[in-house]
Amino acid sequence: MTVDEMKIHGRHYRTIWVAADGWSVEVIDQTKLPFAFETKLLASADEAAEAIKAMIVRGAPLIGATGAYGLCMALRVDASDEALERAYDMLVKTRPTAINLKWALDEMMASVRNQPKDRRVAAAYARAAQLCDDDVATNEAIGRQGLTLIEAIAGKKKSTVNVLTHCNAGWLACVDWGTALAPIYMAHDKGIPIHVWVDETRPRNQGGSLTAYELGAHGVKHSIIADNAGGHYMQHGDVDMCIVGTDRTTASGDVANKIGTYLKALAAHDNGVPFYVALPSSTIDWTIADGMKQIEIEERSGREITHVQGRTAAGEVLTVELTAPGSPARNPAFDVTPARLVTGLITERGIVAATRDGLLKVFPERAR
Amino acid sequence: MTVDEMKIHGRHYRTIWVAADGWSVEVIDQTKLPFAFETKLLASADEAAEAIKAMIVRGAPLIGATGAYGLCMALRVDASDEALERAYDMLVKTRPTAINLKWALDEMMASVRNQPKDRRVAAAYARAAQLCDDDVATNEAIGRQGLTLIEAIAGKKKSTVNVLTHCNAGWLACVDWGTALAPIYMAHDKGIPIHVWVDETRPRNQGGSLTAYELGAHGVKHSIIADNAGGHYMQHGDVDMCIVGTDRTTASGDVANKIGTYLKALAAHDNGVPFYVALPSSTIDWTIADGMKQIEIEERSGREITHVQGRTAAGEVLTVELTAPGSPARNPAFDVTPARLVTGLITERGIVAATRDGLLKVFPERAR
Repeated sequence: MTVDEMKIHGRHYRTIWVAADGWSVEVIDQTKLPFAFETKLLASADEAAEAIKAMIVRGAPLIGATGAYGLCMALRVDASDEALERAYDMLVKTRPTAINLKWALDEMMASVRNQPKDRRVAAAYARAAQLCDDDVATNEAIGRQGLTLIEAIAGKKKSTVNVLTHCNAGWLACVDWGTALAPIYMAHDKGIPIHVWVDETRPRNQGGSLTAYELGAHGVKHSIIADNAGGHYMQHGDVDMCIVGTDRTTASGDVANKIGTYLKALAAHDNGVPFYVALPSSTIDWTIADGMKQIEIEERSGREITHVQGRTAAGEVLTVELTAPGSPARNPAFDVTPARLVTGLITERGIVAATRDGLLKVFPERAR
Repeated sequence: MTVDEMKIHGRHYRTIWVAADGWSVEVIDQTKLPFAFETKLLASADEAAEAIKAMIVRGAPLIGATGAYGLCMALRVDASDEALERAYDMLVKTRPTAINLKWALDEMMASVRNQPKDRRVAAAYARAAQLCDDDVATNEAIGRQGLTLIEAIAGKKKSTVNVLTHCNAGWLACVDWGTALAPIYMAHDKGIPIHVWVDETRPRNQGGSLTAYELGAHGVKHSIIADNAGGHYMQHGDVDMCIVGTDRTTASGDVANKIGTYLKALAAHDNGVPFYVALPSSTIDWTIADGMKQIEIEERSGREITHVQGRTAAGEVLTVELTAPGSPARNPAFDVTPARLVTGLITERGIVAATRDGLLKVFPERAR
């Protein structure tokens, strides 16, 4: 499979699917992008867990989907209650910040726990497939909601709409479409002139390697910028709105997302630029309110700061060290943007204020 | 010359000096750090200009010193008024944002213009040497001023003082000592427990490659972090103060500095963390007040975003591409932090408010 094929197949390509054998799953190996488009077969719960930890798959919704299929594969080996609990515990711990993983695993547990053992595998695969289909439908709905915001700016501005995004919340982060990028794809497809400022998103460069790759493949105009540059462009009127994804949003609208999101939200606030967060409701953690105090922030290896993967002029992909040998580094993977800095949350049911009241307006079933 | 020697010689090493021939100048090739410590001989005004453009030398004060010696070397070839003007114009255009370059060249012009032709070369070298000595003395004074701030925090806190800095405003950016790092070195030398959060400072990684290198060589505890991470650490009380340098500060206290400084100033403001800017008075542009409108921001090649230099496991230093081939990138090199976000300016004459009144208190000769 080559990059060109993916480009042709466009959005009909998903990031995760059941393989031809009917039980293992295939994913796009996102650690290889943008240098190579390769798929990887995951044939056990352990391999699914490893794929999440090593960020072969990443993005809150896709982590959830991968976790769901991991549980399926565990049940296929052993459908006992003990094995189910063991697989759940192993998978849920792979990454601590994104809540979709726990949500998806809880959904799976609810679907299989009360089934007799001999029906659990089938029930699990059916539920996992449903979760994936739901993710696609949800993201499409998020796209339609967010599109109205872009259309409103385009209508007022009569020239190219400049949107800034951080990290990758596109189709590669989900099963398809994406969250933050779905409105952008829809606006582009509708003929609205749009240009995306793509934060490269150090240390793992998901912006430069994944978001730019997606947008380029879809033909959306964009510019990769250092994470340092967004504030400058906002100061100079070159950003009409920000849209980012989230790994967990609290019931009161605090937003955990890729490290550096908070800095962009501050700059947007300081310059009167609307700052939106696109999220499926599965990303809302209704059990907590204070994101700063209650969301665990994953700390990853300092090696992600001191070393980087790239391609040489000769075409070889390799890892190089950026800093002096032995330089110490710290690497928190997420930060929390307080709700006060968020203009609105783009959910599949509508765009709401980043407050408990705002969320309850479209998710009234969550009121206690 | 090896890294070990430099470490041993410590602060007695300057970043620029007249070579053994008595007229050409030697500099540390900062594009080679932290992988190799190499010096480079500059033997003409053109080579001095090229060293500035290619960032073999960088940092506002050091750019000024290099420009001054460039003028010396031009005069040595041709001491006419026309040659003097030509060299001035060529050198002053090498980089547009840092004002020290223009300041140093103006100082040079004032010293040589009224001299007879046969005295110009000697006068120029004498003035350039004086500018370098003054830079060292000025930075030492800045260090003493800034030290009082760190001492005050240490006195209150009774544990390690955490300082965040952006880019490199250490001795490598100056002739010696540094601006933002001078207070840190003095605090460390006095035995105050100090730890520095070093923003890697994309796209050119001056933090990860130069600041971390300097601090490591001096034995100062530090951690390299992604530029995205500083806000998170401020939210969690892990930053006691920020100190950065500047390439140009307006008469009203607006601060142009490396791209991304503005985002850190916003985060500091949002979290009640003091945000200080250390600067010699040669960095103040008394002719302008509005930094956002009046300071030209250099735009550098997008290749600095899409490609990066690093060292392979085998020890080879090479350039790798980080993004998909053909991905477009934009690269503004500086941004402007409005005075309202700056807690104080650390000058060689004292720490003052980032206002015209504040600056005039210590530079009353500038009052009109």
